[in-house]
Amino acid sequence: MTNVAVGGATGYGGIELIRLLLAHPHVDLTFLSSEQYAGQQVCAVHPHLPGAKGVLRALDPAAMARECDYALLALPPGKAMEIVPQLLEAGVRVVDVGPDYRLRDTDLYPKWYDLSHTSAELSAEAVPGMPEFYREQIASVRLVACPGCYSTAAVLAMAPLVAEGLIDVTDIVLDGKTGISGAGRTALKLAYHFPEANETMSAYAVGGHRHMPEMVQELQALTDARVSVTFVPHLVPMTRGILMTAYVTPTDGAGADALRDAMQRRYADEAFVHVLPDGQWPQTKWVQGTNLCLLGVGIDHASGKGIIVSAIDNLGKGMAGQMVQCLNLMLGVDESTGLNARSVYP
Amino acid sequence: MTNVAVGGATGYGGIELIRLLLAHPHVDLTFLSSEQYAGQQVCAVHPHLPGAKGVLRALDPAAMARECDYALLALPPGKAMEIVPQLLEAGVRVVDVGPDYRLRDTDLYPKWYDLSHTSAELSAEAVPGMPEFYREQIASVRLVACPGCYSTAAVLAMAPLVAEGLIDVTDIVLDGKTGISGAGRTALKLAYHFPEANETMSAYAVGGHRHMPEMVQELQALTDARVSVTFVPHLVPMTRGILMTAYVTPTDGAGADALRDAMQRRYADEAFVHVLPDGQWPQTKWVQGTNLCLLGVGIDHASGKGIIVSAIDNLGKGMAGQMVQCLNLMLGVDESTGLNARSVYP
Amino acid sequence: MTNVAVGGATGYGGIELIRLLLAHPHVDLTFLSSEQYAGQQVCAVHPHLPGAKGVLRALDPAAMARECDYALLALPPGKAMEIVPQLLEAGVRVVDVGPDYRLRDTDLYPKWYDLSHTSAELSAEAVPGMPEFYREQIASVRLVACPGCYSTAAVLAMAPLVAEGLIDVTDIVLDGKTGISGAGRTALKLAYHFPEANETMSAYAVGGHRHMPEMVQELQALTDARVSVTFVPHLVPMTRGILMTAYVTPTDGAGADALRDAMQRRYADEAFVHVLPDGQWPQTKWVQGTNLCLLGVGIDHASGKGIIVSAIDNLGKGMAGQMVQCLNLMLGVDESTGLNARSVYP
Amino acid sequence: MTNVAVGGATGYGGIELIRLLLAHPHVDLTFLSSEQYAGQQVCAVHPHLPGAKGVLRALDPAAMARECDYALLALPPGKAMEIVPQLLEAGVRVVDVGPDYRLRDTDLYPKWYDLSHTSAELSAEAVPGMPEFYREQIASVRLVACPGCYSTAAVLAMAPLVAEGLIDVTDIVLDGKTGISGAGRTALKLAYHFPEANETMSAYAVGGHRHMPEMVQELQALTDARVSVTFVPHLVPMTRGILMTAYVTPTDGAGADALRDAMQRRYADEAFVHVLPDGQWPQTKWVQGTNLCLLGVGIDHASGKGIIVSAIDNLGKGMAGQMVQCLNLMLGVDESTGLNARSVYP
Repeated sequence: MTNVAVGGATGYGGIELIRLLLAHPHVDLTFLSSEQYAGQQVCAVHPHLPGAKGVLRALDPAAMARECDYALLALPPGKAMEIVPQLLEAGVRVVDVGPDYRLRDTDLYPKWYDLSHTSAELSAEAVPGMPEFYREQIASVRLVACPGCYSTAAVLAMAPLVAEGLIDVTDIVLDGKTGISGAGRTALKLAYHFPEANETMSAYAVGGHRHMPEMVQELQALTDARVSVTFVPHLVPMTRGILMTAYVTPTDGAGADALRDAMQRRYADEAFVHVLPDGQWPQTKWVQGTNLCLLGVGIDHASGKGIIVSAIDNLGKGMAGQMVQCLNLMLGVDESTGLNARSVYP
Repeated sequence: MTNVAVGGATGYGGIELIRLLLAHPHVDLTFLSSEQYAGQQVCAVHPHLPGAKGVLRALDPAAMARECDYALLALPPGKAMEIVPQLLEAGVRVVDVGPDYRLRDTDLYPKWYDLSHTSAELSAEAVPGMPEFYREQIASVRLVACPGCYSTAAVLAMAPLVAEGLIDVTDIVLDGKTGISGAGRTALKLAYHFPEANETMSAYAVGGHRHMPEMVQELQALTDARVSVTFVPHLVPMTRGILMTAYVTPTDGAGADALRDAMQRRYADEAFVHVLPDGQWPQTKWVQGTNLCLLGVGIDHASGKGIIVSAIDNLGKGMAGQMVQCLNLMLGVDESTGLNARSVYP
Repeated sequence: MTNVAVGGATGYGGIELIRLLLAHPHVDLTFLSSEQYAGQQVCAVHPHLPGAKGVLRALDPAAMARECDYALLALPPGKAMEIVPQLLEAGVRVVDVGPDYRLRDTDLYPKWYDLSHTSAELSAEAVPGMPEFYREQIASVRLVACPGCYSTAAVLAMAPLVAEGLIDVTDIVLDGKTGISGAGRTALKLAYHFPEANETMSAYAVGGHRHMPEMVQELQALTDARVSVTFVPHLVPMTRGILMTAYVTPTDGAGADALRDAMQRRYADEAFVHVLPDGQWPQTKWVQGTNLCLLGVGIDHASGKGIIVSAIDNLGKGMAGQMVQCLNLMLGVDESTGLNARSVYP
Repeated sequence: MTNVAVGGATGYGGIELIRLLLAHPHVDLTFLSSEQYAGQQVCAVHPHLPGAKGVLRALDPAAMARECDYALLALPPGKAMEIVPQLLEAGVRVVDVGPDYRLRDTDLYPKWYDLSHTSAELSAEAVPGMPEFYREQIASVRLVACPGCYSTAAVLAMAPLVAEGLIDVTDIVLDGKTGISGAGRTALKLAYHFPEANETMSAYAVGGHRHMPEMVQELQALTDARVSVTFVPHLVPMTRGILMTAYVTPTDGAGADALRDAMQRRYADEAFVHVLPDGQWPQTKWVQGTNLCLLGVGIDHASGKGIIVSAIDNLGKGMAGQMVQCLNLMLGVDESTGLNARSVYP
């Protein structure tokens, strides 16, 4: 058994990590952090976990280093940078799902997060937490930086087509739709108050969303042409799920089959990424509570645009599930360990 | 008082028409049709209308012609064609919200509706039921064909920019999202069964949706360049509302202000179309139960794409509200009569 | 036109009052208070009211007295007591929907609201804002105290049966269920954060809810026997609506027809209270956005218990609708003025 | 590994059984029945189960007997009776969650299910599928009849108090609230069409619901006094979950602590039934996707009524979870096998 810490254990990412790791055969949860609920019993703060043991504690890298070999961090922007150097120094391997170590070009960080970046060297060292693209590096590295939930949905949908040169990378339109758990749990806002968020839809962060540069970074690595992404996220009145609809221009008259074939080839050996057959389009309900990404591929008959739709659970493959998948790689155990649960349908 | 018939009074369009027309100062509802509930009291079939008078009857154009001066039709595809010729012949003026008379090129009809078109002559005569564009013709014509709900949202969002040549009309991407009342009320399907439709999102009709040719028809009328629209609709777990996100390429470097100015100029005198100020984006909740269309306009800073978001109530401005607006024009009364109710918020 | 102030114009009660009064033919809204948004344009704070005029102001009884003849108050507990004495003194007539003037026995107030009561004399003078029971007093009094939303649903369901001695008043069980707008809009809590409140049900305030003593006060006035009410409220994941299920023991073997007849007799002349026929049970959707109360009446065949179900919109008949109904009585205009809108169904 | 059949594999009970049994270490799913989808691949009919093997088949007791040792049946009323005799004859042990074998007094069956009962002898033999009360019999019997979802919630809430004589069993009021998956998946009705079922609440089956006689049967077995239950179920706009609020009269002045102590004593050793501490009340979200039942206990201070609230997942402990728990007992494996997943929260 490996001792693992969860940083941010009362946010939605942390709650999902606890759910997954309590059932993980190789992990002991030995440190659970929460600033707001420090000192309280886990099972008192999380009544959906009757019988869960332990007490929540404030973030404490020294204690984490003493008690844990791995730390999984789901913290607000800026918080990981404060403790990761010390954790790595002490030999703790880290999977971080916050934004601090995602952008290789840390000069971009202040613009999107309104904070200085204080850990550029480690950003250069960090490996993106996308097992489908960085499997071997993740296994051996000491710092993994998982992408944002939208980025995971976008990159899984676009990467094979970009890599094979099947689409015009200078004009990618991504229309993202998220359930409201994507807004987090700590900062209560009127916009997420049930009567305000229920029975309505809206676009937000139009003009530029924080996850866009991550998407571009990953897609740009696959092509020499200059990648341009237009991404608009939307709020949808449901709890979990991201649906990403991509509009692309196929090159050289590639049709739906060519696009789908490329996708299927790329993900044929992946346990968690499935390309649906012609005519089937994914629903977020099909993946809720799982680490799956489902992909639908087609062509708009009139315009010839390629349409790719990807569905993930924003807290699963979009967050905690992917973190555990990375942890499994780092532990050298089967990548699917603890991640085989099916969707609680309906 | 004018005697008005509603064809399809137990579908969602018809239910909304009854709500609006019961409160309309110049209208008497004298004929309400329903095949499924013919012979039953309106208030028994619609318990949300306690005290409503009258009995539902099967469609009967002869009786409608005897008893009514106007007919508002919200019928399944193919049904309006069966009775409109007789109604017009008898002097009844018609507002139809079904697809039968929307497409001027009736050769397109069989492809999208899987039915032969039997009334091409009247299709040529019909005026599109969009008061913002056909106000004067609507006032004087005998047959008005209101567009589909998605089309209304799309055309209101795009028309000013197409007309002024501010965008590249050969590459318009429209991502549509609808509440589930858009699926209608008569044909029950597993996909709309509450446990299946709740807490999920999905794309549908990818490849080509019936409303696309209507959108193109209206936008094409405004420009010489060949209009191309890529439109993908999505189901969202809420009852009412359409949100349409348009991705366009501005010409000659037009920025957000130029786009917004054009929109505001175009709709400055419109009672039901409002262009929001810079930085504000519409929610469907703001328009539920109303005849309003709210429009947000901006630019993606990285890609330069123009983003237009329009929000309507699919049963309001997208259906019954627009029909009543057209009826008001035909009656020669104030266009807003009976349409001034505010959103029941939240 | 009468000048009317709304106190608390950015809470849900106030928002609904604005919606109703903007459409009221005898009212000018001349003062809208909000502590949080003071100084901002109404239409900026409430984008669902495009075109609404005016600026929100902090509560100011002197200004309200100068500018208004009537004040409709939807304020947090304790706030009405601070300004009502001054308003009445200045000749302003008041309809208050907060709890300050509901309890005739003001000694009960501190126990339920954790505040001292400072206006006992006016509490004695205030008339309960239930037109069905206090129509004539409301018309002539200067201070009306509307009941809580649960109380309205409960008293309308129980009063005829208590008054006619048809049930055992010593054992009334009331199971209340509310949409989440009942929790208000100002104080954000984790429990009402969309992901927490969505897809779940729970009981709250078990042991004793603030509205219980109001219910008992009104029912006790109708009988000599000692009324005892057991009331448990529940949160349901929807925005608007209260459903109250009452379990009672009929006296002298009264059956469903006897109970229903008593209810129908009592409300035969009421515009907003309808007793449904045998076998029909009300839904909250049938009354959303309206001032209606629908009542279903039956008997449990095995146990002989009487079952009464009442449905209201908590913000309509349970709050703003009832306040406007009271205002109409005070103004001497038709009691239904501005309240005839039908439910926005579905 | 034991070969197990699921009868009714495309209803919600069957879907949940497949989810649980695919992860069960001692079970091979060798026969999945569906009348509607017979002949289709499981993973095509259930896209939320990518990679699931096998083809759906029509019910065929001979084939089931050949291929399976156990059959778990989630069939419409009357269907189990048609095949269970043959299955038992062939040595297959059966867990049925339909109503056919629940009522020991089969004379009651036609009244509630409008069907003749054709298998009274086996009804006498069947053991109720409630492990907390019939653990040993379940382990050895060949036919287990799991109760309805409401009955499980009600009996778990009431049994300890009835057994210890702590409440007046002649006056038990049970207010039940269910998510809409309780309505099943096969028979589509307008009432469960998303736009009709969303954003509304209603009571149904007032006067007498099918689950009442089951509840009475189980509670009556615990006392000599004549049990009387008043039960009214309600529909709530969410997918999963039952909340049952019980109103009881404590005997001999038993207070909240006495009631709670009795509950805690009774369930101290149960893995799936937890009594919450004073002041905490269960939410259905805390148990979604699990086999848990959470119980809250208190007293109404004014009336002295005892209030017990129980929360289960109607498809978990209320259906498939309980069936698997029974199967585990029959297999002689740990009762919790395959049932340890925590709630997918939020």
